[in-house]
Amino acid sequence: MSILVVGSIALDSIKTPFGEKKEVLGGSATYFSYSASFFTDVKMVGVVGKDFPEEHTALLKARGIDTKGIEVTDGKTFRWIGEYEFDMNVAQTKATHLNVFENFYPKIPDDYKKCGTIFLANIDPGLQLDVLNKVDKPNLVVCDTMNLWIEIKKKSLEKLISKVDIIIMNDSEAREFTEEASLIKAGIRLLKMGPKYCVIKKGEHGALLFSDHGIFSAPSYPLETVYDPTGAGDTFAGGFVGYIDRLNKIDDQTLRQAMICGSVMASFNVEDFSLERLKSLNLNAIISRYKEFKKFSHFEEPELSL
Amino acid sequence: MSILVVGSIALDSIKTPFGEKKEVLGGSATYFSYSASFFTDVKMVGVVGKDFPEEHTALLKARGIDTKGIEVTDGKTFRWIGEYEFDMNVAQTKATHLNVFENFYPKIPDDYKKCGTIFLANIDPGLQLDVLNKVDKPNLVVCDTMNLWIEIKKKSLEKLISKVDIIIMNDSEAREFTEEASLIKAGIRLLKMGPKYCVIKKGEHGALLFSDHGIFSAPSYPLETVYDPTGAGDTFAGGFVGYIDRLNKIDDQTLRQAMICGSVMASFNVEDFSLERLKSLNLNAIISRYKEFKKFSHFEEPELSL
Repeated sequence: MSILVVGSIALDSIKTPFGEKKEVLGGSATYFSYSASFFTDVKMVGVVGKDFPEEHTALLKARGIDTKGIEVTDGKTFRWIGEYEFDMNVAQTKATHLNVFENFYPKIPDDYKKCGTIFLANIDPGLQLDVLNKVDKPNLVVCDTMNLWIEIKKKSLEKLISKVDIIIMNDSEAREFTEEASLIKAGIRLLKMGPKYCVIKKGEHGALLFSDHGIFSAPSYPLETVYDPTGAGDTFAGGFVGYIDRLNKIDDQTLRQAMICGSVMASFNVEDFSLERLKSLNLNAIISRYKEFKKFSHFEEPELSL
Repeated sequence: MSILVVGSIALDSIKTPFGEKKEVLGGSATYFSYSASFFTDVKMVGVVGKDFPEEHTALLKARGIDTKGIEVTDGKTFRWIGEYEFDMNVAQTKATHLNVFENFYPKIPDDYKKCGTIFLANIDPGLQLDVLNKVDKPNLVVCDTMNLWIEIKKKSLEKLISKVDIIIMNDSEAREFTEEASLIKAGIRLLKMGPKYCVIKKGEHGALLFSDHGIFSAPSYPLETVYDPTGAGDTFAGGFVGYIDRLNKIDDQTLRQAMICGSVMASFNVEDFSLERLKSLNLNAIISRYKEFKKFSHFEEPELSL
């Protein structure tokens, strides 16, 4: 199987309590693709400017990612400048220069149109809907979004959510979108809008999966230090969707395993800036951390009798 | 086995988005004892004024709790007036009237001095140390605290922590006490101060257990609505310590089970004001919710091969 991903490609300048990096590779499609590439084939659609360093494209290709769908146009690549203080759950955006991303209109190469799985990373929900109209019917459509679209394009977003199989949001987005303080109510409300599954990411606190089978509460991975949380959500999505596409089955147990794979990938990603930690990963390390997750969260039946 | 608990007994007036209650039964020793009473024998030490309603003492006795150690003195019972807004993790204290609790000096009845387990609920760490000096050497000593003592009695608190087997704190207390932003670093730091185990409660996000065996990350119970979080931490401690005392063994697997029992008890407690929800509980309901916890958080090994 393979995944078509449509989203942003960026050059990020990031400051955290642990250091500062300028113009490093970032963007939702980038983090997603790199993470998913450990599990399955990935085809990327995005846009960069003529200033986009060739080494970044080479890095993606080296993981077998199909970069044919990355359009190179006149102008500069999307830049994001952000900072994290001690509460590493919340990024403070210092500047966003959309540049060529401002007029991004996804062009899907013909041989991308038959992918079994589609991941619509965070872009304008109108464009996400447009991508769905351009491709052959996939087995699985997963989408992400952000607070901006909830605030300015809620109708389009509602239409999109009714057409996808899995919606992924973080906790604050789910609360804002559904106007429910309780994440459990928010997840149940999102399911009622059409998707078969809903994932709510809780940053360092793990993630929740909602479906007709009930709720799965994935624990957090107990990391001592988070160096840079940028891209953690997209890296989670890459592990989650990548695992499902690799196994080519959609059932409750597979989705639970996929949630852990997503959490494993995100836990690696935050250990260094940009894709630095992911660059040195292999499947063996991923499986080891998955098993650690099981150890961290395992408990037996109670020794209580009536 | 049995537990000696020393702590506060209060009349709480509470407002949450779901309602308002005046002068209902509360206090750290109360919530702890009621919760622990589902697992083992409990002996309470505390103080109330002559205005303390007899029905409250009767309620505790009806669960088999030994209330002989509750001193009744001239004056009024401790009152706490608090409010929760939509972020139910943080209580806003509107007023604290210590009344008879201001001069509380724990008196331990002779037949309480041989309890196998001692729970030092949140009181002045100097008094907590004093209790330890008054009793025969117990099998297990567990203590709780609060931000006030971290701020004004840090030395006493450090001395206490070096003498207990298990220290329980919530996330903000652990961060404040250790001056570590990372809860994982905070837990490891607390272990180095002497206790064999450290528990960090994360409110709606579950709880962490630290020991030489590593870390256990207990998931949150996915409750749709939290009506009143008052006493959740002490109710957690009651289930946690109650389970350990019942099984009369201290090993990693038992402590993990105890963490889930604590989480189960806290999840019931927040479903209504004061002890209302706990009043209608029985061991059968506790076991059922424990099994639900397992279902909510279970996942299989990954289907990944190298």
